[in-house]
Amino acid sequence: MDVAIIGASMTDFGQRDAWIRELLAEAGARCLDDAGVDPGEVDHLYVSNMASGEFEGQTGVMNALVADLGLAPAYAARIDQTSASGGAGTYAAWQSVASGASDATLLVGGEKMTHRTTGEATDVIASLTHPVEYKHGVTLPSFAGLAARHYLERYDAPRRSLAAVAVKNHRHGVDNPHAQFRKEISVETVLDSPIVADPLRLYDFCPITDGSAALLFCPADVAGEYADEYAVISGVAGATDTHVVHEREDPTTMRAVVDSGRDAFEMADRDPSEVDVAELHDMFTILELLQMEGLGFADPGRAWEQVEEGRTTRGGDLPINTSGGLKSKGHPLGATGVAQVYEIYRQVTGTAGPRQVPADVGLACNVGGFGNCVTTTIVEAR
Amino acid sequence: MDVAIIGASMTDFGQRDAWIRELLAEAGARCLDDAGVDPGEVDHLYVSNMASGEFEGQTGVMNALVADLGLAPAYAARIDQTSASGGAGTYAAWQSVASGASDATLLVGGEKMTHRTTGEATDVIASLTHPVEYKHGVTLPSFAGLAARHYLERYDAPRRSLAAVAVKNHRHGVDNPHAQFRKEISVETVLDSPIVADPLRLYDFCPITDGSAALLFCPADVAGEYADEYAVISGVAGATDTHVVHEREDPTTMRAVVDSGRDAFEMADRDPSEVDVAELHDMFTILELLQMEGLGFADPGRAWEQVEEGRTTRGGDLPINTSGGLKSKGHPLGATGVAQVYEIYRQVTGTAGPRQVPADVGLACNVGGFGNCVTTTIVEAR
Repeated sequence: MDVAIIGASMTDFGQRDAWIRELLAEAGARCLDDAGVDPGEVDHLYVSNMASGEFEGQTGVMNALVADLGLAPAYAARIDQTSASGGAGTYAAWQSVASGASDATLLVGGEKMTHRTTGEATDVIASLTHPVEYKHGVTLPSFAGLAARHYLERYDAPRRSLAAVAVKNHRHGVDNPHAQFRKEISVETVLDSPIVADPLRLYDFCPITDGSAALLFCPADVAGEYADEYAVISGVAGATDTHVVHEREDPTTMRAVVDSGRDAFEMADRDPSEVDVAELHDMFTILELLQMEGLGFADPGRAWEQVEEGRTTRGGDLPINTSGGLKSKGHPLGATGVAQVYEIYRQVTGTAGPRQVPADVGLACNVGGFGNCVTTTIVEAR
Repeated sequence: MDVAIIGASMTDFGQRDAWIRELLAEAGARCLDDAGVDPGEVDHLYVSNMASGEFEGQTGVMNALVADLGLAPAYAARIDQTSASGGAGTYAAWQSVASGASDATLLVGGEKMTHRTTGEATDVIASLTHPVEYKHGVTLPSFAGLAARHYLERYDAPRRSLAAVAVKNHRHGVDNPHAQFRKEISVETVLDSPIVADPLRLYDFCPITDGSAALLFCPADVAGEYADEYAVISGVAGATDTHVVHEREDPTTMRAVVDSGRDAFEMADRDPSEVDVAELHDMFTILELLQMEGLGFADPGRAWEQVEEGRTTRGGDLPINTSGGLKSKGHPLGATGVAQVYEIYRQVTGTAGPRQVPADVGLACNVGGFGNCVTTTIVEAR
């Protein structure tokens, strides 16, 4: 059964004076409103969230959201795939409709993080790593530094090409009213910022963010009854890489990106050249390059050239992260994968406003951990 | 598409000298072994777990389990519905196969709790309640006490009928090699135990437990290739009740039990009289009675008579909790719903050993919070 997306929303991302429960309710209510669907029509609710218990001491957020949106007696569950929870939620929502279990599934992803220090937030995220890595202090940013150094040396890529990813995504984010940082930066801004994990500097990293995003799914054959503009999920797949990063054969190959991308393209009967717009998981600048290569948008070691040549900016061959990406828009863990699909939905339905690019086929790639788990979703206009 | 269960396992429940990761791997490996399925054949993995982050500071357990079982590149996600996480995992696994996304889905539920004090564990569980309830100190045991008092007074039921639930489940648990407490108790044991939440006493409550359980799902039309003995999920549905308990119209009606049960029976084209064996969520003795009534196994206010008359014990009309239930077997949150379906699978495939009762149709009802979220699953022999 083909599955359609008939509504989408996101809250402002940034430092929000609201708890996770309020953020989820804000996005969820806006999404139902966007679709023009009554709360009573929702059969299933999935909440994508990594760690409301660790961040706020509040669990059971899916049951609270049923109450806040008036969805009872709808079935509800929380789905976690660390920073790829939103992608996993998209896949779960697709499954709930495609299996015939639900005629209307609401997905709301969100995280509340900024009330904790950056160190505390990094520590919660690092709890997903292998305990041996964790005990040696190897957090995700340090893996990113190692991978970046390896990439630059192996492919003779200039350091400034990494900065170019951040510069592009900040430029895109200026036109996103929900983005955390709506300001342009220069290559020098990045190169002059403090070192975090050599060679990566502060502006190579996404921020700590509060926010939420939501999508409403239904069978494609009834989508026209709800919405004039809608999209279908033509491909969706997930994959897992090694839990211990040093066990990977090649430090610049994101195996789960390759695997989930290949399976999603196969399901959609598409190839990378047919994608018009993509949202990639630029938690660190280096990741955008590795995902471009893993998904087949660039040959190994060559993605940096496309970025430097401006081919991934608005107006280029394949605009990437028109939303501003995690870098500028922000990265509230559970919301991110949902917000990626939100942006693709806006693009392929021609409702992206000042960010609009010509697009019939879009792709979102949501990465958990340092590529530990990845979900790739292909969305097309109908 | 009909979905079959072709393998099942559970670890010993109790105080275990093993972390969550080890418990999940133990159940998962045994389940694959039980089904005779190679790890490389698994497409999807779901892990049912409420709070490994809060209990152990370890997240990403689904990715770790992919590594420990050699499942890569299988897709993996964690699903949480508080103490009903195992039921939600069963529903998610059903959806993953029924949607065509996976030809073999492994579900592993587990929780590691006993390294924390009872107070700490109760506090983690209480974090699922509404913050107003939580701040007033209303934990789940106190709700159970209020509901029990209301039930006893409203229906003129004797206090000893609640104790009879515990006595029956302890008797059943003696024959379960994996149960935490394999010892018979008497009505007096319950009535003489310390008060926890009047009128409920210590022996009306399930213990804090470590443990894990697993199930392997595939399309029913290929199940015969894997297993001589298998079962199909003929019905599965979930529902959500109010988040704030005092908003409920009737304190002895578990609305989400009623709703999920009705939907599961409708999907299975069965009625309550056709059920041969059931696993109910006896976190507190009173809950077993309320679920019997909510599912249509007894009229409102009359379930206690069936228990007192011995009709829900082995050899009775409808044996309930042949596994020993949460009371005797233990209640490792994320494992419980999976272990319930494990027991039903054993019963309907005639592999329950000394616990065997005549059964073609079985039902499992997994309850989250104080009935906040419920999943009901009907499993039948094929």
